[in-house]
Amino acid sequence: MAQTISFSSDYTRNAHPQILKRLLDMGMEQNVGYGTDDICKSAADKIKAACGCPDAEVFFLVGGTQTNQTVIDMLLKPYEGVVAAQTGHIAAHEAGAIEFSGHKVLTVPAMGEETDTDRFGSNVGKMSAKDLRTYVEGFFADGNHEHMVFPGAVYISHPTEYGTLYTKKELQDISAVCREFDLPLFLDGARLGYGLMSKRTDVTLKDIAELTDVFYIGGTKVGAMFGEAVVFTKGGKPKHHIPVVKQHGALLAKGWLLGVQFDTLFTDDLYFDISKNAIDMAEILKERLKEKNYEFFLDSPTNQQFIIVSDEKLSQIGDKVGYSFWEKYDDTHTVIRLATDWATTRENIDILMEFL
Amino acid sequence: MAQTISFSSDYTRNAHPQILKRLLDMGMEQNVGYGTDDICKSAADKIKAACGCPDAEVFFLVGGTQTNQTVIDMLLKPYEGVVAAQTGHIAAHEAGAIEFSGHKVLTVPAMGEETDTDRFGSNVGKMSAKDLRTYVEGFFADGNHEHMVFPGAVYISHPTEYGTLYTKKELQDISAVCREFDLPLFLDGARLGYGLMSKRTDVTLKDIAELTDVFYIGGTKVGAMFGEAVVFTKGGKPKHHIPVVKQHGALLAKGWLLGVQFDTLFTDDLYFDISKNAIDMAEILKERLKEKNYEFFLDSPTNQQFIIVSDEKLSQIGDKVGYSFWEKYDDTHTVIRLATDWATTRENIDILMEFL
Amino acid sequence: MAQTISFSSDYTRNAHPQILKRLLDMGMEQNVGYGTDDICKSAADKIKAACGCPDAEVFFLVGGTQTNQTVIDMLLKPYEGVVAAQTGHIAAHEAGAIEFSGHKVLTVPAMGEETDTDRFGSNVGKMSAKDLRTYVEGFFADGNHEHMVFPGAVYISHPTEYGTLYTKKELQDISAVCREFDLPLFLDGARLGYGLMSKRTDVTLKDIAELTDVFYIGGTKVGAMFGEAVVFTKGGKPKHHIPVVKQHGALLAKGWLLGVQFDTLFTDDLYFDISKNAIDMAEILKERLKEKNYEFFLDSPTNQQFIIVSDEKLSQIGDKVGYSFWEKYDDTHTVIRLATDWATTRENIDILMEFL
Amino acid sequence: MAQTISFSSDYTRNAHPQILKRLLDMGMEQNVGYGTDDICKSAADKIKAACGCPDAEVFFLVGGTQTNQTVIDMLLKPYEGVVAAQTGHIAAHEAGAIEFSGHKVLTVPAMGEETDTDRFGSNVGKMSAKDLRTYVEGFFADGNHEHMVFPGAVYISHPTEYGTLYTKKELQDISAVCREFDLPLFLDGARLGYGLMSKRTDVTLKDIAELTDVFYIGGTKVGAMFGEAVVFTKGGKPKHHIPVVKQHGALLAKGWLLGVQFDTLFTDDLYFDISKNAIDMAEILKERLKEKNYEFFLDSPTNQQFIIVSDEKLSQIGDKVGYSFWEKYDDTHTVIRLATDWATTRENIDILMEFL
Repeated sequence: MAQTISFSSDYTRNAHPQILKRLLDMGMEQNVGYGTDDICKSAADKIKAACGCPDAEVFFLVGGTQTNQTVIDMLLKPYEGVVAAQTGHIAAHEAGAIEFSGHKVLTVPAMGEETDTDRFGSNVGKMSAKDLRTYVEGFFADGNHEHMVFPGAVYISHPTEYGTLYTKKELQDISAVCREFDLPLFLDGARLGYGLMSKRTDVTLKDIAELTDVFYIGGTKVGAMFGEAVVFTKGGKPKHHIPVVKQHGALLAKGWLLGVQFDTLFTDDLYFDISKNAIDMAEILKERLKEKNYEFFLDSPTNQQFIIVSDEKLSQIGDKVGYSFWEKYDDTHTVIRLATDWATTRENIDILMEFL
Repeated sequence: MAQTISFSSDYTRNAHPQILKRLLDMGMEQNVGYGTDDICKSAADKIKAACGCPDAEVFFLVGGTQTNQTVIDMLLKPYEGVVAAQTGHIAAHEAGAIEFSGHKVLTVPAMGEETDTDRFGSNVGKMSAKDLRTYVEGFFADGNHEHMVFPGAVYISHPTEYGTLYTKKELQDISAVCREFDLPLFLDGARLGYGLMSKRTDVTLKDIAELTDVFYIGGTKVGAMFGEAVVFTKGGKPKHHIPVVKQHGALLAKGWLLGVQFDTLFTDDLYFDISKNAIDMAEILKERLKEKNYEFFLDSPTNQQFIIVSDEKLSQIGDKVGYSFWEKYDDTHTVIRLATDWATTRENIDILMEFL
Repeated sequence: MAQTISFSSDYTRNAHPQILKRLLDMGMEQNVGYGTDDICKSAADKIKAACGCPDAEVFFLVGGTQTNQTVIDMLLKPYEGVVAAQTGHIAAHEAGAIEFSGHKVLTVPAMGEETDTDRFGSNVGKMSAKDLRTYVEGFFADGNHEHMVFPGAVYISHPTEYGTLYTKKELQDISAVCREFDLPLFLDGARLGYGLMSKRTDVTLKDIAELTDVFYIGGTKVGAMFGEAVVFTKGGKPKHHIPVVKQHGALLAKGWLLGVQFDTLFTDDLYFDISKNAIDMAEILKERLKEKNYEFFLDSPTNQQFIIVSDEKLSQIGDKVGYSFWEKYDDTHTVIRLATDWATTRENIDILMEFL
Repeated sequence: MAQTISFSSDYTRNAHPQILKRLLDMGMEQNVGYGTDDICKSAADKIKAACGCPDAEVFFLVGGTQTNQTVIDMLLKPYEGVVAAQTGHIAAHEAGAIEFSGHKVLTVPAMGEETDTDRFGSNVGKMSAKDLRTYVEGFFADGNHEHMVFPGAVYISHPTEYGTLYTKKELQDISAVCREFDLPLFLDGARLGYGLMSKRTDVTLKDIAELTDVFYIGGTKVGAMFGEAVVFTKGGKPKHHIPVVKQHGALLAKGWLLGVQFDTLFTDDLYFDISKNAIDMAEILKERLKEKNYEFFLDSPTNQQFIIVSDEKLSQIGDKVGYSFWEKYDDTHTVIRLATDWATTRENIDILMEFL
């Protein structure tokens, strides 16, 4: 059912009007397939410029799980696994897409777990460089590791699944561990725009391009109809990436549909401007929630906010507005997620707050 | 590069204006994700009605190789393979997507191969019921077959990769073999509309729904931006199809994008009307080519036409118009493919013929 | 290097003399391949009798990881994973063999982990029925579980990787959860004999056959040259198990080599008698270690014993006797494993204790 | 059932007495696991000497399909397939073990197929360098090959599945194509001894080591209980081959069991001497069959002989002696296989001929 107002996720709407307009303006224009067209090239060039890495190699995929599966499979040898925080999307919420491609997800603790003093803080869901080092050093120190799955790459999401953000120092530290052990660092940027435009971040797109080996810029959740831009920051994309992508069922015939969208998003800073809207709206939403004394489950600096609501209140709300069930908090309370996005308006928040 | 005129394939353009209009009209409308929305339900209902199979189960995927990989993996037990003509798309041109999911493609001869008397006829690329029976009977007759890959499903494409079509009788015969041996029959309809609207077919959409166990209605090549509608004709879709789809990296977050497109295509027979345009234009194209004495490589009743052109002529054409290289014919000639589509115009053909 | 005396593992020696004699006595006898011979049938019959389950289906594989990989793949649907304690062999020490076959290992806490009060007790490495229930109930309660890997079977090892044992009550409780949620229970019995003959167990082979859906009786570590006997306790082996086994590269051409070994082990209780030797020797070893005031890392009732030794002592021992490095205990101490087996003698222990 | 006399295959018996004796003589000797022991090292050294390739890297696996699956997976990138004759064991008779590991078997014609003038000759089942070149050149010439499975290695069997042999010139030609296109050449030597000792071969073990990149020396069918020795002839074994082997479920805990067998086989030319016996007996068998006017299905120079027998005769034989059904020849005749082995005696042949 189309919902009048929903804060359930950031992928409830179509695309930014400029993208739709440009798609419409294509009319009967014809392009060659599979991302080998000039529009994709133009989009890639703009992304490389924005990242400050002229030697990067860029291509486009349709969705997040698909991108995680395909890129990780590109990075790993068959007997290697990918290291992730145990709350990482690939570890918990991709229906086994990584294992489907034959690889184990090797988990390290996520910050903010139950025994953590930061249980409700702004680090929830992050991997620490210390935990990563402990894991990797421990692996190679263990004389028996030939019977274990070798760590072959490291996966982090930024923002994390909880909307939290790494600091530049934290990314530098993780990146340093990765380079010490020759492990490519892959950053899942499904919501990257919302991280970059947070009021509380010191991390830029160029930092990410510098500190990772490959990352992706999420479009699906940030203004595009669909699409993720994969950036191999120092080059090093597989020589034949098209068969690998096709083998994963991930090759879009009309690849230029992805190019058009990213070319638009990376013209005149559109990607950043619309990301900022989600952040601005999230800040307003937080204020409004605080005014009504809602308790926050954790301290998220991005577009996803998590609050604790009584089950009684939730039953009153019913399906009048959309939110995401996150988890049960206790016998009478539930944690829900409210997500703003590139198109959220003050009026949307007003309507939401009528019910909350 | 955007090409002024190209007949290289039927996926060179965006989408039918009605689809684009509807996508535009959605504005800021919000929908729930992963194909669980009401638009997908509406589209599925229209497709079930068009197929005359109220018990069918319908869902939507993004592209053809993805659909072949995911559906075939749904049909097979792990130790089973899928039977296909050796020219079948899954056997030859999907970069090993079926094998990536652990299954062998078991090939039977395709009609029209070199020793075939119909080398240049209208059967090229089809599987015969006789060859299928020989293969399957032979398999189960062989006492040693526990060391071989069991046939677990049968794949045919209609139209085939050569634009050719099965007759209703041929489909009935293949279907009968499948039922005798309890093998689900899967029909790849990436270009289904162009097959159904051919001047030379006695096969209807209802026939296909009746004679197959699962098939898909191609959108990518027939008026949609992207998308394929999977129809489990008698029900029997996997109980939990969402995790299977997600595991394959094939779950589109904004599933309603697929629903909108197919809902539009199956309103007021749009799918059939635009398919008919491609056929009408192909007929005109054929006449014009015959007038110029081009030799046809085979006799295709659908939107893909294959002609033999001298290499000298091709060097003159250069990239002034788009065509597909198909294969070398002899030392001085080449087979090229010319494809019309839902949007091809007489003017397009005029321009093409200026160069040919 | 062949070691004069080693307690490093229970797979350092060839096979029990009766097995070797019988293999020798075969002379030039010829048998049909792939486990379809009469010797395998005889061995299966003896195992079914010993298990008290006449409807069981039994076949033989070569090694433990191979058995875990093949059987688990037989039990799971493609989108399902197997639930295991996080210290389970399949989770930690099989180089990703489960993931290689496309499945995720879903981990629940193992008893005796760091925050556990039984850190050094006799429960280390076991899965609790309570943790299993929490996991499975939580999974199906979560509305979003279609994006997660479905639990499709439960794996436990008995003895565990730490030599510890489930009580009959614990197995009953785990089995009850499995049946409630329709999850087949698979028991890894690589060291089953040593568990069954422990002085501190109330679990019999018949109990295991009754409470599990499939388990295996380890031969490699218990008197055979190699081999594991897989028992589908209520029937239900895949109809075509040979192609599944062959597909995994696990089909031994001369399958009767496995039959001969298990037929011997299950004649006149040989399997149990030689297992008892390992237990008797482990009891003596424990006494001797206690006399010398060695600290035990945990309380194992089977043939694997874990003690804490100073690094100084270990450097004195060098390679004069064999032991297994287990893990670092602190900066100056190490946990080592000492394993007795079906052939260990008092004299072996005397020699060991000269160095310890 | 144990058969009094069977010529059904060359894996009906246990092992050569010298191997059994040595296994027996081990007594309670202890060895370290997983092939890291000194016996394996000794066996590897002897094999390297016999091959004349001191830089080779050698390890041991249990069976043929397992070896093909594991080695081919070591050689290929994920998007690559292995090229084989369409009658090759990996293409036809391994239950999809190659596809299970994610790779396609790319088939080229086998010599001796129906349209071949050598239908009944001594080339049946071989790949020609010409066909290989046609395939590989055609692949890379095709502009569209990014949608196809890349050839990543070449597989041949010697002797082939039909007992036929490559000449040295033929191997040189195949090897030359492989090197030109940078494709590793892998030779399946499950019956290598029988090929090397054929009266009609000019190929030596050193030739094979020189002309291939990796091959294996079959033990299972040539005197060992089980086991195949993998030889990476120029080095280049994967750096971490143990986890790869374990991931495939192919790592034998007591790896020295393999070492003992190959160390024995490669002491004092035992492997060659016992292989010669099978050839000598096959020559006698052929004479005896010719005397009785049996028609040969093809001309095999090794231990497998294929003859055409009337179904009436076969019904008389019943199960009095063992043979392999190969295929139906016509409505009243059947092709059967008779295999000699390392232990076949003249008396065995006498008994067989009483029934034939």
